Amino acid sequence: MRTYLDCIPCFFRQAIECSRIVGLDEEKQKLVIDEVSRIIPNISLSASPPEMGRVIHQLIKRAIGKEDPFKEIKEKSNRIAKEVYPLVKKKVTCSKDPLLKAVEISIAGNIIDYAVNTSIEVEKEIEKILKKEEESFKKGFFHFDEFKKALKNAKDILLLGDNAGEIFFDKVLIETIKTLYGNKEIIYAVRGKPVINDVTVEDALFCGIDKIAKVIPSGSDAPGTILNICSEEFKEIFKSADMVISKGQGNFESLSEEKREIFFLLMVKCDVVAKDLGTEKGDIILLYNKKRL
Amino acid sequence: MRTYLDCIPCFFRQAIECSRIVGLDEEKQKLVIDEVSRIIPNISLSASPPEMGRVIHQLIKRAIGKEDPFKEIKEKSNRIAKEVYPLVKKKVTCSKDPLLKAVEISIAGNIIDYAVNTSIEVEKEIEKILKKEEESFKKGFFHFDEFKKALKNAKDILLLGDNAGEIFFDKVLIETIKTLYGNKEIIYAVRGKPVINDVTVEDALFCGIDKIAKVIPSGSDAPGTILNICSEEFKEIFKSADMVISKGQGNFESLSEEKREIFFLLMVKCDVVAKDLGTEKGDIILLYNKKRL
Repeated sequence: MRTYLDCIPCFFRQAIECSRIVGLDEEKQKLVIDEVSRIIPNISLSASPPEMGRVIHQLIKRAIGKEDPFKEIKEKSNRIAKEVYPLVKKKVTCSKDPLLKAVEISIAGNIIDYAVNTSIEVEKEIEKILKKEEESFKKGFFHFDEFKKALKNAKDILLLGDNAGEIFFDKVLIETIKTLYGNKEIIYAVRGKPVINDVTVEDALFCGIDKIAKVIPSGSDAPGTILNICSEEFKEIFKSADMVISKGQGNFESLSEEKREIFFLLMVKCDVVAKDLGTEKGDIILLYNKKRL
Repeated sequence: MRTYLDCIPCFFRQAIECSRIVGLDEEKQKLVIDEVSRIIPNISLSASPPEMGRVIHQLIKRAIGKEDPFKEIKEKSNRIAKEVYPLVKKKVTCSKDPLLKAVEISIAGNIIDYAVNTSIEVEKEIEKILKKEEESFKKGFFHFDEFKKALKNAKDILLLGDNAGEIFFDKVLIETIKTLYGNKEIIYAVRGKPVINDVTVEDALFCGIDKIAKVIPSGSDAPGTILNICSEEFKEIFKSADMVISKGQGNFESLSEEKREIFFLLMVKCDVVAKDLGTEKGDIILLYNKKRL
């Protein structure tokens, strides 16, 4: 997805919000804002928003002097998600359609962000979100039949992770796929370096994803999968995998114009993406991009 | 009110929104954004937000090559408000407390902006807003007793206008004051030059305010009353008037730290002002600044 002008106020909003979360004082927050301002006249609107996101988070990391300023937040999200995991797992195994439930829950897992404090809050939010899937089906943004068909035929599946915490819900999805479809080779990609609360190898190990899938870093240090900064190994897997499942809005924004088949699982978190997709903010989506291409 | 960092994303949002409204194409919108970006590193956070608002709207006027790009929008707002005027006037005269109703309605008039299309919409919105005044009373943000006392004692009253359309509701307030308190000298200040949909002399004449008050331009071409760019005549009146009534958020932002007594009538339109005041977005307020100073 290209960068729309409406992304620009949001770049500043994110820069301020994240500068505050990592503990920069107002003066340093302003310096980050000033740096972002100086870059704006030179950005290309044909680049995807995570390209600017990458720059913003590099500026914040430099200003706070830490390579992983969201480390504690990610650890907290992982702890909370680990507590919710058994309940979520049960929801899936006891469901009439475990794959559908696992997909929905994996998308819903996206609500575990810095604002969420307890496992109770997570459980409540998930219940709310699960009710939305039916609407998405009706709107034609839940290509579950195509997803099942692709799963059945795929030998190797690349799953692009998104946030810490949420990764426990991806684990449920991987486990469900393995239970239902037997021994697929599943590769779980994480970011190459820390960026916001996005998953890294550390989170994958904490979650135990490495026991059920091959974990690889994409090489990207953007809050998305920007192919031209990804490693050769990752790009090769991305190209050759029978099926690619992309989690979250950042991965969608950076890969929505790629020509290969991708299944995008995301919660629509802003009006710009909603408009780009022709849907609404808050919707949960399983988008088979061939239906758009 | 100072400029908070959270005002910065909003400067960009406003610049984009207004560039679109006046009909700039995307390329020119981006050029306006680029100019705003270049200015951000040099702004003072101790200046009030309308100072930056002024610069943004100067950039937009230059880009579209018009001195008054909101002219048609203001005319439309005035036409709609003129249609609603008799109903609103009746609401006040038939009220148990006509002054209170006139104040409420004058604040509520602020909803007539570019988004409103019909008089029916205006009537509906006003009904909704009027219900909010009771909450503001409870929250301690409706200093009506002090307002009445000041009105009674004042010989000359300076009323600072805000938007086109809304001016018809200010007319009702002035008429009500005159009916209840006899022959006060009322001065109605408008912007010195066009800026967004703010009132100018032209709107005051269309509304017939000049028949019931002395109309003067403040000299400010900002979406607020920035004293150091106002005319000497205006500053003298501002200083010497027995009572100053300030309408709208822009006037509040630019005058909230002035030492003289001011009654601020406004609808709180953003989270930053809400936080600065300790109230909530959407609240309607009659604030006697001496209670804060």
